[in-house]
Amino acid sequence: MELQTYEPKALLQAIAAKDVKAIRHDFEEYNLVDIAETLNEAILEEETTLITDLIFVFKTVPPSYTAEVFSYLDDDLKEKLIALLTSEQISSILENLYSDDIVDFLEEMPSNLMKKILQAATKETRSEINHLLDYKANSAGSIMTTEFVELKARDTVKGAMEKIRKQGKEAETISYLFVVDAQRILVGTLRLRDLIFAQEDASVGDIMETDFVSIYTHDDQEEVAKKFKRYDLNALPVTTQDDRLVGIITADDIIDVIDQEATEDIQIMAAVAPLGDEYMKTSVLSLAKKRVIWLFVLMFSATFTGLIIGSYEGLMQHLPVLAMFIPMLMDTGGNAGGQTSTLVIRGLALGEIEIHDYWQVLRKEIGVALIAGGALGVFDFLWILVQNELGLISIGSSANPPYLIAGMVAITLFVTVFLAKTVGSTLPIVAKRLQLDPALMAGPLMTTIVDALSLMLYFFIATQIFHLV
Amino acid sequence: MELQTYEPKALLQAIAAKDVKAIRHDFEEYNLVDIAETLNEAILEEETTLITDLIFVFKTVPPSYTAEVFSYLDDDLKEKLIALLTSEQISSILENLYSDDIVDFLEEMPSNLMKKILQAATKETRSEINHLLDYKANSAGSIMTTEFVELKARDTVKGAMEKIRKQGKEAETISYLFVVDAQRILVGTLRLRDLIFAQEDASVGDIMETDFVSIYTHDDQEEVAKKFKRYDLNALPVTTQDDRLVGIITADDIIDVIDQEATEDIQIMAAVAPLGDEYMKTSVLSLAKKRVIWLFVLMFSATFTGLIIGSYEGLMQHLPVLAMFIPMLMDTGGNAGGQTSTLVIRGLALGEIEIHDYWQVLRKEIGVALIAGGALGVFDFLWILVQNELGLISIGSSANPPYLIAGMVAITLFVTVFLAKTVGSTLPIVAKRLQLDPALMAGPLMTTIVDALSLMLYFFIATQIFHLV
Repeated sequence: MELQTYEPKALLQAIAAKDVKAIRHDFEEYNLVDIAETLNEAILEEETTLITDLIFVFKTVPPSYTAEVFSYLDDDLKEKLIALLTSEQISSILENLYSDDIVDFLEEMPSNLMKKILQAATKETRSEINHLLDYKANSAGSIMTTEFVELKARDTVKGAMEKIRKQGKEAETISYLFVVDAQRILVGTLRLRDLIFAQEDASVGDIMETDFVSIYTHDDQEEVAKKFKRYDLNALPVTTQDDRLVGIITADDIIDVIDQEATEDIQIMAAVAPLGDEYMKTSVLSLAKKRVIWLFVLMFSATFTGLIIGSYEGLMQHLPVLAMFIPMLMDTGGNAGGQTSTLVIRGLALGEIEIHDYWQVLRKEIGVALIAGGALGVFDFLWILVQNELGLISIGSSANPPYLIAGMVAITLFVTVFLAKTVGSTLPIVAKRLQLDPALMAGPLMTTIVDALSLMLYFFIATQIFHLV
Repeated sequence: MELQTYEPKALLQAIAAKDVKAIRHDFEEYNLVDIAETLNEAILEEETTLITDLIFVFKTVPPSYTAEVFSYLDDDLKEKLIALLTSEQISSILENLYSDDIVDFLEEMPSNLMKKILQAATKETRSEINHLLDYKANSAGSIMTTEFVELKARDTVKGAMEKIRKQGKEAETISYLFVVDAQRILVGTLRLRDLIFAQEDASVGDIMETDFVSIYTHDDQEEVAKKFKRYDLNALPVTTQDDRLVGIITADDIIDVIDQEATEDIQIMAAVAPLGDEYMKTSVLSLAKKRVIWLFVLMFSATFTGLIIGSYEGLMQHLPVLAMFIPMLMDTGGNAGGQTSTLVIRGLALGEIEIHDYWQVLRKEIGVALIAGGALGVFDFLWILVQNELGLISIGSSANPPYLIAGMVAITLFVTVFLAKTVGSTLPIVAKRLQLDPALMAGPLMTTIVDALSLMLYFFIATQIFHLV
């Protein structure tokens, strides 16, 4: 809810008319995320004029506004702007952004523009950026910011407030403060509110917390997210292996990480290599590449399921009705196994399930298989007979009465559900144990295994029953 | 990294020995989340003694520590404790928790204990709780806290700091401050850092932001999460429909919501009704219930795929080799469609794809289908012939040469991928348009539809080719 309503069209008109006063008014009064979105959407339509106009905007509006808007622009638009802006303009944008945000967009730039940006940066900013770029992608070091407030344990509350007034303007947050010793080893944390409520002459060492949580630069961002969730954090200090404080991560940064991790898992479970970017911004060729490899693997492995059917060609010709139940058995097996593997994979990702819980998970899933498989088997037995009575299908002969065929399908179904639940709970936990991604073991691969098992079972049972009877 | 290492066993021993000094030391020095976890795990083993011991802990350790530990305990354990604690003890726990945390666990309590808690609460706390309990589950109102700092625009910076020192002790955050007018209508927001860096005699009205973002009490938590992501927020004010400020939501609260929403979507996509609780804490019966309904629906619908095969029994007897390719066609169709529907569903959930993007999505997916389907078709054609040459399978006769059968399978495969991608991109967007949950249209249901379509196509093509040849 804004008290004055933001009008995207009015802003675009003001930009087209180079109405400096109106443009500045909008940048000052309205939310910069909304303004960035207006520009992102406009660029899709009337590109060339807008780019020139935007250069004008970046020249006339103070960088404290334009820098933030810049950080919300689409990667394409950022590239085009960087290519056209002067070194001074780029420099003033950089000085108005936090180092983690600079690194975020820098990593997406082509190398010539990356060079242009690094050359435009002040010496200090450049060394900060280079430092962050060195960390492995998706590590805590790569997403931290290096602008934070650092106190000493012997500082008084009054002295600390003075340090904050000095260091704090540059810092991403001053709500959370960090205390280091002479070797820059992190020894405590405190919140600004603790200072506000403390006596002026108390020492920081007395009021700081020493039971803080921290993370190493090389830890994966997934670990970072887990710590935020487990300890309900708002900020997390990042240290080197020898506990020296080098950066901090704030809660708003981690929200994106959490979404990104969930998206990655979801995509892998659906047999898509992680896109790494928004769907709408990914090209058709790249979308195809991210999928075709898995489709090949799965098609190839499904061939073997076909070979199983092929090897029972004689049985099928003798009892052609068998083919009719193949889709139902395969689908139910895939669905039942998919339910289990998905629950287990998500549980592992959230840390709700650990490797050592395997036997407990298996016991639960066997319980579910008995209930669900039993119910499905009974229902299917009756449903097949009903279909036969109604003339929807026509199964059975004097040698092989309908109830025998229905019974055989129902038993196969029951055992298939049982197998699917067992495979579905085992594969992801085994993957985790082998330090592979459990999501890789999900849906499609598991489906192929369950398909093969259930068809072998189906034909085995059929052979037994109809040879013996 | 803690400077002294926390020893779960030492704490449990101290509790068993009623060693007040050691217990207090641990509660004061170590992270309360870790302590709560120790208690949660211990309770699974030696229940009865520990509960009595815990009552002793809650009696002797100051409520400023025990209240937080209490908030991290498992629901079962909370229930047992509430049943045993005195009214005064419950009251002091409540006074040390934020209202949103109280409501969180209150909603899980049986009604007799809920009553006990409400009776123990002070009049003020009780009215806050009742107020929050009135909001619909998962609405912004139900997850907000009512403890925040409220300023007036005419306050000076100095006056504001005094208000913060007074109101702030109770507030969940003082990093973000909210400015209301005489009617309690929200007119601005500011950060504590703005006050710190401002002149003492400046007015709050001069330094506050007026382009703030807010949300209504009845909005869904999914909307809340979207605002946090879109605007990179750390705190979000919650207002009534007529813009009066009634609460705030902080970033650490929303992290859980984001995970919860992703988990729900993942479970629905795998044909599981959302569990609503952690996997390990869900009973076998409840796990079975959440799944068996979907298994029934999907098994029932797969029956019709079987009927399609049944109706081509004659063709299959004439050309039994056809059965061999059914699993591969079904699996590839399911996988190709699942890839698309999953990407689209996740895109919709994150707001990256909107309903009006449908044609663009369809165009992209058709592009992917041509590339991926084409590559798969060509590969499969060759692979079938290779298998035949190697004697792995035996297809073809003088009337129906192998290349014709391989060609027919390859064409069906290509069209199946095309159909799967079309159905996979259409179903979720149609669902969204009809205000249904797009995730419901995912994997299993889509697989069934694609299976049926691709089998009909397969037999149709087979009939055409082998009647005409």
